[in-house]
Amino acid sequence: MFENSSKTELKEFGEFGLIAHLTQAVELTQPSTVTGIGDDAAVLNFKDKQVLISTDLLLENVHFDLRYVPLKHLGYKAVQVNLSDIYAMNGIASQVTISMGLSSKFPLEAVEEIYEGALLACKNYNVDLVGGDTSSSAQGLVLSVTSIGHADSDKVVYRSGAQVNDLLCVSGDLGGSYVGLQLLEREKKIFLENPDIKPDLEGKDYILERQLKPEARKDIIQLLADLAIIPHAMIDISDGLASEILHICGNSKVGCKLYEEKIPIDQMTYDTAREFGLDPTVCALSGGEDYELLFTVPQDAYDKLKNQMDISIIGHITDANEGCQMISKSGKVHEIKAQGWNAFSKKD
Amino acid sequence: MFENSSKTELKEFGEFGLIAHLTQAVELTQPSTVTGIGDDAAVLNFKDKQVLISTDLLLENVHFDLRYVPLKHLGYKAVQVNLSDIYAMNGIASQVTISMGLSSKFPLEAVEEIYEGALLACKNYNVDLVGGDTSSSAQGLVLSVTSIGHADSDKVVYRSGAQVNDLLCVSGDLGGSYVGLQLLEREKKIFLENPDIKPDLEGKDYILERQLKPEARKDIIQLLADLAIIPHAMIDISDGLASEILHICGNSKVGCKLYEEKIPIDQMTYDTAREFGLDPTVCALSGGEDYELLFTVPQDAYDKLKNQMDISIIGHITDANEGCQMISKSGKVHEIKAQGWNAFSKKD
Repeated sequence: MFENSSKTELKEFGEFGLIAHLTQAVELTQPSTVTGIGDDAAVLNFKDKQVLISTDLLLENVHFDLRYVPLKHLGYKAVQVNLSDIYAMNGIASQVTISMGLSSKFPLEAVEEIYEGALLACKNYNVDLVGGDTSSSAQGLVLSVTSIGHADSDKVVYRSGAQVNDLLCVSGDLGGSYVGLQLLEREKKIFLENPDIKPDLEGKDYILERQLKPEARKDIIQLLADLAIIPHAMIDISDGLASEILHICGNSKVGCKLYEEKIPIDQMTYDTAREFGLDPTVCALSGGEDYELLFTVPQDAYDKLKNQMDISIIGHITDANEGCQMISKSGKVHEIKAQGWNAFSKKD
Repeated sequence: MFENSSKTELKEFGEFGLIAHLTQAVELTQPSTVTGIGDDAAVLNFKDKQVLISTDLLLENVHFDLRYVPLKHLGYKAVQVNLSDIYAMNGIASQVTISMGLSSKFPLEAVEEIYEGALLACKNYNVDLVGGDTSSSAQGLVLSVTSIGHADSDKVVYRSGAQVNDLLCVSGDLGGSYVGLQLLEREKKIFLENPDIKPDLEGKDYILERQLKPEARKDIIQLLADLAIIPHAMIDISDGLASEILHICGNSKVGCKLYEEKIPIDQMTYDTAREFGLDPTVCALSGGEDYELLFTVPQDAYDKLKNQMDISIIGHITDANEGCQMISKSGKVHEIKAQGWNAFSKKD
């Protein structure tokens, strides 16, 4: 993987040397960061705000495949995925910690790339890198990210707040990340069978970026604030629309009606799904990794939202005993079931 | 490893089912916990306190060997090791998140044991488990713990605050964890060569517990508060006394004189080190994983500390240009060097 680049073995550094080297470029910009890397713990100050904490573990050959994921993208995505959880609480992300476990196949240059991607994400999203841990790993790459954010206590949005008659809304478009992954998996297979064939990914930038370099929807949180809308319930879409709808409905003890025709699917996602013989709606419902925001708002927010290009109203909340239903394009009623990603049925 | 116990495969559960199952026993007791597990992020409220965040990554066959580490102890230790960092800031630990990556060799019962140990640590140390992530792992067990604590802003103690003439103090005794590890490694070797020989660990409970079930020194933080002592600098001993002294002196831009004869070493640690042909002082200086607290206090704290059985005054802080010196039992002067644990030179 790293054959052509210059190599510096990590053991030449030692843990402290590596941390010192990697964190040279870290700049602290957040007023809430009192002290970052370099002591037993980071010190933060949120005054009268509530503090939000979320953590994710990313493991090689479970969550990512280094045969097609560039390391810089991996570092970027690891941070994004985690920030997305803070935004899903209607919070402002302000700090992250990043821990890495590295096997001996990774030279310094590889670690630098991961870090470079992570720091770019921090810069773009205005968060400080304030801690972490680095270690060798017996096999494979391990990334663990914890993100920290804050919000006024009356603005934190839970999964459990959806109310009957709320509008069900989603940002951006869905299914692209999953279809992008199918494309990468196909090209990997072809490459493994015949390394002389170059990958055919031309013109597929959008869905590849959805998979390799997703962006957490900080802009939607800002937009909602500008529109003076506080959602009743919110969650980010990491496991697929169906799974997240069921989380909101389950936690809020409500039902919902979702209209298939309203689910936002990009044209490239649609066409490429069809190429693979996949139903684009199923990709949106069960694909996951879109990192869009799913939220419910009171009906009177309709006028504010109806012309927002980047927000789709896809259904509404009903009484719990009506269940969670999808009305298909042909008018049939289906019960929504989660067929999202099961981290324990894959590759173990 | 789990041949004799009943097995439930993790994939029968799925991620959400597993989380729901494991977190049944979680109780929230901290006033600063607003919401724990079950949403995109935990919600905490520290009012006017500063917030402390620390994170550790623990990897199978790097940080622990499941051939002799019981899973419940592993869960307990993973939490302790991380809480220790919060206490080392003179803070009060109040929450943890625990992420686990699990290969298919681990049945549900194994995961339950890890969790049981982690929850016991939470209970004993009065902290809430508020989040985490679970996933399959392609190989081996991965644990990532983040701990969260708080302190008044004028009570946070950094590594960088040591002043010339401060007394250098350490809690408990040192080197035991490292000597306990040597014992476990020896018995593992014997067992691997001849599985019929039973491990000979009798009478070695203390040093085995130091390795397998360390306790973070929350009690020392309480004792210092009761004595109205705020240390000038503090760090916990994870990499060995020498390495931690150099961290404090380096960050504080001071030197020190450490007296070998003052280093607290338990009799069993001493005798067992000798059995192994090891110098007990070297075990204390470079062994690590003692999770005791190393701190400096102004000279006028001497009277308050001199009769505290669990605190040893082992030297004092000097001007930076005097360097970091250890005065040996025979009166020779040695420069203190870090030979602590290098996570990148082992087993990779």
